[in-house]
Amino acid sequence: MRLSRYFMPVLKETPAEAQIVSHRFMLRAGMIKQTAAGIYSWLPLGLKVLRNIENIVHEEQAKAGHIPILMSTLQPADLWRESGRYDDYGEEMLRVQDRHGRDMLYGPTNEEAVTDIFRSHVNSYKDLPLTLYQIQWKFRDEIRPRFGVMRGREFLMKDGYTFDLSKEDALHAYNRHLVSYLRSYERMGLKAIPMRADGGPIGGDYTHEFLVLADTGESEVFYDSEVTDLSFGDREVDFDNVAECEAVLQEFTSRYARTDETHDEDLFNSVPEERRRTARGIEVGQIFYFGTKYSESMGATVVNADQKQVPVHMGSHGIGVSRLLGAIIEASHDDKGIIWPEGVTPFHVGIVNLKQGDDEADAACEALYKAFQKAGLDPLYDDRKERAGGKFATMDLIGLPWRITVGPRGLKNGVVELTSRKTGESEEVTPEEAIARVIAIYAAL
Amino acid sequence: MRLSRYFMPVLKETPAEAQIVSHRFMLRAGMIKQTAAGIYSWLPLGLKVLRNIENIVHEEQAKAGHIPILMSTLQPADLWRESGRYDDYGEEMLRVQDRHGRDMLYGPTNEEAVTDIFRSHVNSYKDLPLTLYQIQWKFRDEIRPRFGVMRGREFLMKDGYTFDLSKEDALHAYNRHLVSYLRSYERMGLKAIPMRADGGPIGGDYTHEFLVLADTGESEVFYDSEVTDLSFGDREVDFDNVAECEAVLQEFTSRYARTDETHDEDLFNSVPEERRRTARGIEVGQIFYFGTKYSESMGATVVNADQKQVPVHMGSHGIGVSRLLGAIIEASHDDKGIIWPEGVTPFHVGIVNLKQGDDEADAACEALYKAFQKAGLDPLYDDRKERAGGKFATMDLIGLPWRITVGPRGLKNGVVELTSRKTGESEEVTPEEAIARVIAIYAAL
Repeated sequence: MRLSRYFMPVLKETPAEAQIVSHRFMLRAGMIKQTAAGIYSWLPLGLKVLRNIENIVHEEQAKAGHIPILMSTLQPADLWRESGRYDDYGEEMLRVQDRHGRDMLYGPTNEEAVTDIFRSHVNSYKDLPLTLYQIQWKFRDEIRPRFGVMRGREFLMKDGYTFDLSKEDALHAYNRHLVSYLRSYERMGLKAIPMRADGGPIGGDYTHEFLVLADTGESEVFYDSEVTDLSFGDREVDFDNVAECEAVLQEFTSRYARTDETHDEDLFNSVPEERRRTARGIEVGQIFYFGTKYSESMGATVVNADQKQVPVHMGSHGIGVSRLLGAIIEASHDDKGIIWPEGVTPFHVGIVNLKQGDDEADAACEALYKAFQKAGLDPLYDDRKERAGGKFATMDLIGLPWRITVGPRGLKNGVVELTSRKTGESEEVTPEEAIARVIAIYAAL
Repeated sequence: MRLSRYFMPVLKETPAEAQIVSHRFMLRAGMIKQTAAGIYSWLPLGLKVLRNIENIVHEEQAKAGHIPILMSTLQPADLWRESGRYDDYGEEMLRVQDRHGRDMLYGPTNEEAVTDIFRSHVNSYKDLPLTLYQIQWKFRDEIRPRFGVMRGREFLMKDGYTFDLSKEDALHAYNRHLVSYLRSYERMGLKAIPMRADGGPIGGDYTHEFLVLADTGESEVFYDSEVTDLSFGDREVDFDNVAECEAVLQEFTSRYARTDETHDEDLFNSVPEERRRTARGIEVGQIFYFGTKYSESMGATVVNADQKQVPVHMGSHGIGVSRLLGAIIEASHDDKGIIWPEGVTPFHVGIVNLKQGDDEADAACEALYKAFQKAGLDPLYDDRKERAGGKFATMDLIGLPWRITVGPRGLKNGVVELTSRKTGESEEVTPEEAIARVIAIYAAL
């Protein structure tokens, strides 16, 4: 994209309403615009990152054998009356009446809707296991929305639902989700630690939240420092292999790691003192096995091998897609702006022309721009007639991981400057070398 | 995808509520499930086609230089009070109050929201022209939703908005949209004819609807038969070239083609009698230049070259994305089911194993399946233990353009059967030949 033809309304001033750094930078970089309290429209740069995160989630869900669907945002109240949640949910549920006076609601989550799909179409244990998921907008009418997309009212979430014949199978589905989530977050450049969560009114041991450590996190967390050394890495996992998925669960959840909701001081004290850590964390996902709560109340049964009708075992597994933009920025920024991990960056590389209008500089920038496009990468070329300082400030603010600076002086010596946003280090290299280096970085992802 | 692991709940019975063929086939093929009147959830097969259509729209909008954003579904009523439409819109607007009693609405269209984004960030004529578009869910509370996704209440639409300094520039934006729409529909396998539309209360000559001819269309249409001979084809267009885009408009709109709303009997009679046609059509898009209506009422102005504040000239340009699934099926089906055009098909090729469990047949199917995946295509392998008749009926119903049938008898002679869904013609070819033929077909798209 050529910046002169793009829509990236960067703000010079820091917006007064933004209390945390991710909100500030998302507004300043022209990524979002507030429509109403806790409701945002996504401007081009923000939308690109949102889509990148969605794509990672889709790819990892596909690898795990999970199947995408898309449920409507509006749902009839009657479905929620079946589960008993229409009355229980409280004021966070946005309730609507249509023109015929029918009670509807904007889905805050979708256990009821997906259970309705399941019971309408699946009758036999032979069609299990089944995991259906979606990435769709949801609405929760938070009383005090704040922190930008971190605690919005209209938000984008991945919600997956597992249907299994037995608790044992459902726990394998749980483990599959844990594995796929570990992979997803790592691809986004995040360390998200699974922590024992609170099962709420349903209870049960089978729920973990994924938390990203950040000073602005809403939860206090307590953990054994060894959990931050764990890394999923490149390993291949056979998602059908029960033992293999179970082993990943054990590896990543056997050490102490809990939020304040489930924190147990005595247990924590059994961790060697030098490894005990407290910090703050941002919740970016949760996995939850809850048994037959919805299948029983809503009649989601299958015929088992003995020809008996049995309720299916279910679980819900979520990733906060729009919230992740905030979490990534909280975890990866400096005073000048965002530092995007390569896996989610809106553009792969920025090209800064120090002297727009100079024939040689323009030609060199065009050549770089086209070479990256030809390689399937997405460069952002700052082709505006601005002074260099303004161009650098914009690039630092929007946080592309790599920048190539092109000026007449360097070109005389046959070089451009390749700069890492993260380290700030620059190297003079030939344009060909700069292209090859950047292509190699993304090819290795 | 292996069908044994997929979720494609095909119905044997024709659902009673479905009055038109596209609705019937979408329900029977397990593409959608009704959530409430006029509100659907998208099951895996339907979602795949929906995403394919979205991708075509995104690609063609990118080629035209238009920039994607994503606006919230819920919007504050105050924005719509500024334009005067909050009171004018009537009962099709779904109105909501949040927990604080603030008036909100579920966007039925987004002129107000996008004008608010524009006026907040753009101040100078130097930032024009600008086209922002989105593909987002909308809600119109139709009094009698029917025909499945063709006239739903919650629906997915591409809506693009153009901002220009002058009427002349705005008409170039209009023409750019016409070109990009012609390309988009052709890639979807549709002949969509631009027809002079009714400007409504705003009036003006600058609006065209795109109609697909189909017996079940809601509009009566009148046209010169020469318009159906026009084809955009492979031609390259420079979207910055005003004359080139204008010439496409002239080519595709100078012959008589109107809906009943704008039909002019006298003008129609000037078409040679043998070329006069009446038919029915489904509206799948509309382009509309409306001048300064919203920019004036909402204060969307820029400073022009003379340092004067002037309201921008705007247009709205829409494609009915979810409705297109219905329109495509109405235009392309037979008694047995859907016939997907290659550009939007949910899977590129179906593989039918006539004798699941036979070592040779299984191995041949696996080899085909993996060869297609390796080539970047998306095959659907019917690996269920069903009789051949059931497998064929399912493949015909879901309408994949190409089917490869594999059985022990053919394999003895080294051949499989390659069948066109459209013509019904089959050929015996080697597996290698079948792979090469299918790959070549999609490579040529």
